[in-house]
Amino acid sequence: MCKTHVLSVPSAKAPFEKTTIERRGLRSNDILIDIKFCGICHSDIHNAFDEWGGGIFPMVPGHEMAGVVTAVGTEVTKFAVGDRVGVGCFVDSCGECEYCLVGEEQFCTKGVINSYNSYDYNGDLTYGGYSQKIVVKEEFVVRIPDSLELDVASPLLCAGITTYSPLKKWNAGPGKKVAIVGMGGLGHLAVQYAHAMGAEVTVLSQSMSKKSESLEFGADHYYATSDSATFTELAGRFDLILNTVSSNLNVDAYLSMLRVDGTLVNVGAPSEPDKYHVFSLILSRRSIAGSLVGGIRETQEMLDFSAEHGIAPKIEVIDAEQVDEAYERILRSDVRYRFVIDMSTL
Amino acid sequence: MCKTHVLSVPSAKAPFEKTTIERRGLRSNDILIDIKFCGICHSDIHNAFDEWGGGIFPMVPGHEMAGVVTAVGTEVTKFAVGDRVGVGCFVDSCGECEYCLVGEEQFCTKGVINSYNSYDYNGDLTYGGYSQKIVVKEEFVVRIPDSLELDVASPLLCAGITTYSPLKKWNAGPGKKVAIVGMGGLGHLAVQYAHAMGAEVTVLSQSMSKKSESLEFGADHYYATSDSATFTELAGRFDLILNTVSSNLNVDAYLSMLRVDGTLVNVGAPSEPDKYHVFSLILSRRSIAGSLVGGIRETQEMLDFSAEHGIAPKIEVIDAEQVDEAYERILRSDVRYRFVIDMSTL
Repeated sequence: MCKTHVLSVPSAKAPFEKTTIERRGLRSNDILIDIKFCGICHSDIHNAFDEWGGGIFPMVPGHEMAGVVTAVGTEVTKFAVGDRVGVGCFVDSCGECEYCLVGEEQFCTKGVINSYNSYDYNGDLTYGGYSQKIVVKEEFVVRIPDSLELDVASPLLCAGITTYSPLKKWNAGPGKKVAIVGMGGLGHLAVQYAHAMGAEVTVLSQSMSKKSESLEFGADHYYATSDSATFTELAGRFDLILNTVSSNLNVDAYLSMLRVDGTLVNVGAPSEPDKYHVFSLILSRRSIAGSLVGGIRETQEMLDFSAEHGIAPKIEVIDAEQVDEAYERILRSDVRYRFVIDMSTL
Repeated sequence: MCKTHVLSVPSAKAPFEKTTIERRGLRSNDILIDIKFCGICHSDIHNAFDEWGGGIFPMVPGHEMAGVVTAVGTEVTKFAVGDRVGVGCFVDSCGECEYCLVGEEQFCTKGVINSYNSYDYNGDLTYGGYSQKIVVKEEFVVRIPDSLELDVASPLLCAGITTYSPLKKWNAGPGKKVAIVGMGGLGHLAVQYAHAMGAEVTVLSQSMSKKSESLEFGADHYYATSDSATFTELAGRFDLILNTVSSNLNVDAYLSMLRVDGTLVNVGAPSEPDKYHVFSLILSRRSIAGSLVGGIRETQEMLDFSAEHGIAPKIEVIDAEQVDEAYERILRSDVRYRFVIDMSTL
């Protein structure tokens, strides 16, 4: 057992409190990590505010952890003390089902164990990365390439893989026209990945306010969706539209911008249902899809790809005291583009 | 020019009238066909009742034509007098766009010319297959294999290709679990194709009334969707669900029966929008798609596949006088499974 300082939410929507929890003693395949930085994901807010239901309090959010290995279990082979590592959205899975076997633990049929707000297979509640230490099975730990700073790497563990995975799966690459809807924490990474993969990238953002930054991130084109002419001009244009926005869209309008066999992939999920006319799909054999983070293997691949291509989130590093304020700022879209908590301030 | 007897609708929802129209004189690449049989498609009713808008009256519906070649233009090379042939949903396309070049004329960027209720590139209105003769460019004519009777072949020109194409595209085959929603004109063909392609086939029909016939068509399993236990029992089961029903579904409930990466493909289109929660897609990386008939090459492939595997619609052949009554019977689902008009009775 090992005590660690954490930021904890005592009940839904309550302010964070500094407190301590116990991490489990190292099992043979466990790693003890000193968390240096943890990103703030919008889903942390949904969970801390219990907007999706199922919130277990007190809760320690955080699933974008970057740190350094400080101890390893007796049978650990992949990592050694001093290694720079990351932990993302989940910390265990059955390891035996068809999805685990192909490295897509997020779809584990026994149920993946989330990094926080989840009961592990022993019945213990998981506590996340707003914390100075965590103990994790080595199979759920990834290596952070030397060229990535730990603070910059942390948001990649969720925001990075959430956008990288669908772009890979739906073949963003040379000759493909890809649109990214929303230029927030997810969107500004998606632009960089799609560009690095070789696609022609268009940003679809509500206003023109993020145009110059979008072009710096690698976008080839930028359109404001508040201008209805955008939808006319871009009719039938894209092979792939990656929607990073969590509010309800006019789905038919977005589908109209897809060419034949094009796909609208959602990684943000509004709580109310979306609507669409089936004709919008049929007439050009289009699809609507969803994508959920990515497995451990692909997360490692994404980190290596990020290092190779110099892809990094634009971050604002904050102290532990500022998390409540950061949540408020995220809710009014006042962040470019991702908050990262410096755990040394806890 | 050549006069032909037709069944014509003078105005939306009016009863059919027997009358005559002129077909164009043969151009060098045209074929004159004696239509022996024409199937009745549900979309004929939507058009004749002007339910989709854009109806041009008087209208001669029909896009499931099977007949015999009686004359050919001077440069026709594919067909000769006496050949058994079919014409489906369209009769011309630009021939030059990226979709035409790969044999997917239904997506022609200039706009495919429908077999009826459409203006061709010369501005002439097209009249469909409820007719004794038609003149069509040879590129839009397919060959009916000898082992298929002409009456049985006619519904394949729309209902057949509409179901065959998505089953092929979404890889129905050995090891795949495929569900067919709706056991009507489309559904009973879809079951036969999916079975012949090697998939494990489940029929999802409103009641249990079509169970024994479904199993005869090749279904492995049959469930009634009026029983909510069906959705629980089949959770996460299917790789592909082909929805042949044109009314609004509880999309989330159907999506819940798809496994990871599964797709719900719609070939029927309700006029009101469908609703779904994005979470239903994200949590198992599912898709919703639509499919639109198929190109000429694939239509020929479908006919050859049907002949090879003994696939045929179950039909009720009617006289020309019975078309109004047949429409009424289709609207109350009183047909197993497809009406075909015997054009010799016109």
